[in-house]
Order: sequence, then C-alpha cells, then structure tokens
Amino acid sequence: VGEFELLARLRDRLPAEGGHVALGSGDDAAITVPRGAVATSVDALVEGVHFRRSTAPLDAIGHKALATALSDLAAMGAAPGEAYVALGVPGDLDEDGCLEVLDGLLALTRRLGVTLAGGDITASPVLMLAVTVVGYAPVPERFVRRGGAQAGELLVVTGQIGGAAAGLLLLEEARLASALPADVAEGLRERQMRPQPRLEAGQVLAEAGATAMIDISDGLVADARHLAQASGVGLRIDAGALPIATGVAEIALTLGRDPLDLPLGGGEDYELLAALAPEAAGEVLARLEAAGTPATVIGQAVPGEGVKIRGAAGEAMDHAGFDALSR
Amino acid sequence: VGEFELLARLRDRLPAEGGHVALGSGDDAAITVPRGAVATSVDALVEGVHFRRSTAPLDAIGHKALATALSDLAAMGAAPGEAYVALGVPGDLDEDGCLEVLDGLLALTRRLGVTLAGGDITASPVLMLAVTVVGYAPVPERFVRRGGAQAGELLVVTGQIGGAAAGLLLLEEARLASALPADVAEGLRERQMRPQPRLEAGQVLAEAGATAMIDISDGLVADARHLAQASGVGLRIDAGALPIATGVAEIALTLGRDPLDLPLGGGEDYELLAALAPEAAGEVLARLEAAGTPATVIGQAVPGEGVKIRGAAGEAMDHAGFDALSR
Repeated sequence: VGEFELLARLRDRLPAEGGHVALGSGDDAAITVPRGAVATSVDALVEGVHFRRSTAPLDAIGHKALATALSDLAAMGAAPGEAYVALGVPGDLDEDGCLEVLDGLLALTRRLGVTLAGGDITASPVLMLAVTVVGYAPVPERFVRRGGAQAGELLVVTGQIGGAAAGLLLLEEARLASALPADVAEGLRERQMRPQPRLEAGQVLAEAGATAMIDISDGLVADARHLAQASGVGLRIDAGALPIATGVAEIALTLGRDPLDLPLGGGEDYELLAALAPEAAGEVLARLEAAGTPATVIGQAVPGEGVKIRGAAGEAMDHAGFDALSR
Repeated sequence: VGEFELLARLRDRLPAEGGHVALGSGDDAAITVPRGAVATSVDALVEGVHFRRSTAPLDAIGHKALATALSDLAAMGAAPGEAYVALGVPGDLDEDGCLEVLDGLLALTRRLGVTLAGGDITASPVLMLAVTVVGYAPVPERFVRRGGAQAGELLVVTGQIGGAAAGLLLLEEARLASALPADVAEGLRERQMRPQPRLEAGQVLAEAGATAMIDISDGLVADARHLAQASGVGLRIDAGALPIATGVAEIALTLGRDPLDLPLGGGEDYELLAALAPEAAGEVLARLEAAGTPATVIGQAVPGEGVKIRGAAGEAMDHAGFDALSR
C-alpha cells in the first residue's frame, strides 16, 4: 500500500470541516473545538478474531468497526462527534479494498452525523481497525454511567436481542438458513454484520433521566452483571419479557440449544440496557417508539447483587454458564 | 488473555482522575471536560512492521507506541492531555507481558503529564498498539499546522538526527556495534527504541510564533517536503549545518554508505522541524536550550517548491532517492 497515495484518495472522500472540527485529516493532528463535556471510547476489530473476510463484505467490516465503537458512546447518552481510525492493511488487500472498508465506515458517519477527522494507515499481517470515537454532552453529569441504578427502578432494553449471535451462526453454518424464510435469515446476518449503534435512543434515555446504561456487546447477562456490580444492586430479568429477534428460536431449535442461550448470552446485539425510575418509563418508551427504536421493560433492579433470570412460570433459572460465542 | 481480569489489573495502575479527565477507564467511555481547542492524533504500531519482540523489550514497545503518537501532538505545539490505547495481544504474550508493555507506556505518561484514560484489549495474531492522543491549546489558532511557512523564514530542527535509523541498523546487525564505543552504540539503540516526543519544545516553538511545524518521522527530507508542499514554498537545507547524532557517520562508513543517508532519509527521529521568522530565532533557540532540547538552524524557506540540499561547498545535491528504512 502506498500510504500517501491511499491517504490522498481517502481524503477526497472526507467531508469538509464542520461541527466541532476546525481541521480534519492531513496535518499532524486534527483540531476540534468542543463545548461542554466529551466522551471518548476506543474499539478494535481484528480479522480472524472479530470477523472473517470470507463471510463479511469489506464495507460491512468498516461499518461494524465504527458501529461497535459508537455503541459505547450511545451507552453514555452522547451526541455523536468525531471518529479516528487506525487501519492495518494486509498484503493481499489492495487500495480499492481499503477504500471499500472505509466507504462502509463513511456511509455510517454520514447517516449518523459523525465526522471522520483523522487516522493512521499501516501494514499489518491481518486486516485490523482500531476506531476512536468522541461524543458530546452539555455537561459531564448528562452522560449516563453504569453505576447509578437503584433498587426499584425498571430495566429497559432497546430493540431486539439474540439476532446478532444467530446471524453469526448463520454465517458460519450456511445449512442453518434452511430453518428460516430467506428474508429472516438475511435480516439476522445483517444484524451480525451491520449492527446499528443506538445513538439517538441513548440520548433519549439520558434526557429522560436513565440512572445507569450500558451497551449489550458481551451478551445481556454479562453486561447486566457489569451494570449491577457498578451500581451495587441486583438485577432481575424476566425471561418471558425479552424482545427476542425473529428467527432466533428456530436457530436454537435446529441446533438443539436452549432458546434463551442466544438472547441472554450471545452478545454483539449492541442494544442499550438502561435503568430508570418507574414513573419515567411510560413517556420514555413512547419517545423511543416515536424515534424508531422501540424498547421493552425486561425486569427491575432489586436490593442485593448479581443477575437473576426468572422463567415464564416465575421460577429462578440458572444461566451462569453462557459461553461467549464470538469474541 | 482474560480481558476483564487484565483490565482490572491494568486499572489498578492508572492514576486517579485529574486534569481534564472526569471519568477514566472502566465505563463505556471516558469523560473529559476540555477548555479551548483540542488536537487529536492516532498512531498504530504493528509487530513485524514497526518493531520486533526479538530486539525490543516489551516496555520499550509500549513506550514507542505512545511516543510516536505524542510526537504528532508535539508538532502541533499542543500541551499534553489524554491517551487511549487499543492493544492487540498475541497468544504467546501472557498477562505479565501485557503489563510490561503497558508499564512502558505508563512510565512515559507519568513523565510527560499524560493521562491514560481508556482503551480496548483484544486478541490479535501479532502484538499491536493503536494509540490515540489528545492535546490542548487555549485557542485553535495557537496550534501550528504544516502550511504557514513563508519564504525568508528560517528552518529549525530540534535535537539530533540520524540516530534512530543508525540504532535500527545496530539492532538488526549486532556486528556494526564494533565500530563504536559501547555507550554510543547503546545510545543509538535507545534513540530507535525509546524516542522522546518533543512536547515541551513544540510548545516553546508554538509560543514563539513558529509558522509551520512537523515531526520528523518519515525522514527529514520526506517530512520537509510535506511542510514545503503544505506551505507553498521551497526549502533549502544546508547539509553542513545538520545536527547529526554521534556515531551515525561511523555506521555509514562501516556500511559504505553516504554519511547523509541516515540523517536525511532514515526517519524515526521524532524531532521537530519548524519554520520561524529570523528575528524570533535567537530567543527561541535560547529558550529551547534552557528547556533541555537544543535546536539548530538548518536552512530556510525560499520562493518556489520542493526541498533542496546544499552541500558544504554550496553545491546542490540530489537526495531524492532515499529509501525508507523502517516503515
């Protein structure tokens, strides 16, 4: 890869300066002039660990690298700002391939109002993307951390869960698709390859006073545990209330697995899990619905610690042993 | 690598919040409250491309990853702020090894007043570090870009050059060391493995009104070309004035190479190249000397374009064909 030539071709695709950005790519550093408080997060995707080029198109890889990073900002309730990308390019990926990766990423920046403001390109034995994202709030207290949930509050999850893990299984074992209508299988694969960071929903939840929030990247139970531990509360999740993505149950059935494995433990859904006061819930759910990201009450915070799953009949279920499917 | 356990052990080593940082590692994102203008840069180091574990100690790898990123901030004249690290960990590097890498990085943060505020850890086929750094200035105009040099201004370079490339040759071919006193050889290897970002010198140059600045990572001539092109001027460099590091000439002699190859084309010195008005030069050089980073006038900006090297006898020299030694 001719680094300078590739950088020049890439720069042609970048938007002009705007928003917080006073100077974009092309100098030693980008210059921004933020007002208020800043949230910053970093996420790296590595070929063979987080994706395979044999199953994911190049633009989807670029999309996912940015989406997973932005999901952390969504979980803070941040308004989107800038992104910076370190791209590791293997010898068998040519300049056009690099641009496909970056085009997938740029398409998402345009849709979400994010500015790609800089980055670095280097040779690498495998395709690698490390994405740093920056988001904003008027004051630091407006950001929603993990540690504010209190007993008695409701637990809300955005969108549907289990779909990304089912999509991964479909990508890895094509025969599983025969259990599903073609459009449902395609939808699940898309969930895996092109997750949608819930930036708008995160801001709605932050404005509505969510007391704790996290994105579900490691699986609902694993991330619920992080939230419970940071908040010093227990969480009770009602299995019957979970908004499980269409087709997930059929995939589990075909594999002879517990139908709750994927929604509870699969991970990579990049939905938001938030705690909020019961009296705020009605209006928040209506606003999320209006914003195009419906959310569901799936349980509540209780005194104590840890995460307990309650089955449809009210019995306690032990789901401590979920395996991480894809990290 | 157990990501959560490693993160917990790493977090124990991080400083408490302070400076611009309202919330450090441990949530979905770090929170900062900047005032004024922000410069952000990203730099990635990949094993086998930028370093080898067979020649560089783990802590030096961590040091260099942060140092090369901070060098870009130094070239803006930024005051140091935060760093964020994406770490790719190969299967043969255990948790203690990861901590050695991070300890090298943390030692540099402490020395320079940088806060390691967040990051990501992932599996990777090779050791990989992508470092994002953030620096500050009161107003965006205080940052020094590449494009402001004007004909008649002086060209200044900090420190000494050629040492990093000579150090790389010494690391790759141990027999070369016999041409040098042991401490000189060790000093050159250190220049390669542990470059010192010129943050303080960069701020002195920015305050003194440097009109254009860049760090010398790609080699003096290559980076001078970037500055010349961005500024729309030509640059004339006097070969006889170059502050060539001790031992570089002996290495070149041993290899039968032109003694100017390493200082002009070797790269990785991470010194600063700046343009400034002749009337400002005297005081700036004195202040840099007092700050422990002497600088040297090596030429000037002239009408026209491109970079010309003038030999000791005043004749023009053609050094267009420098090979990049290590990128």
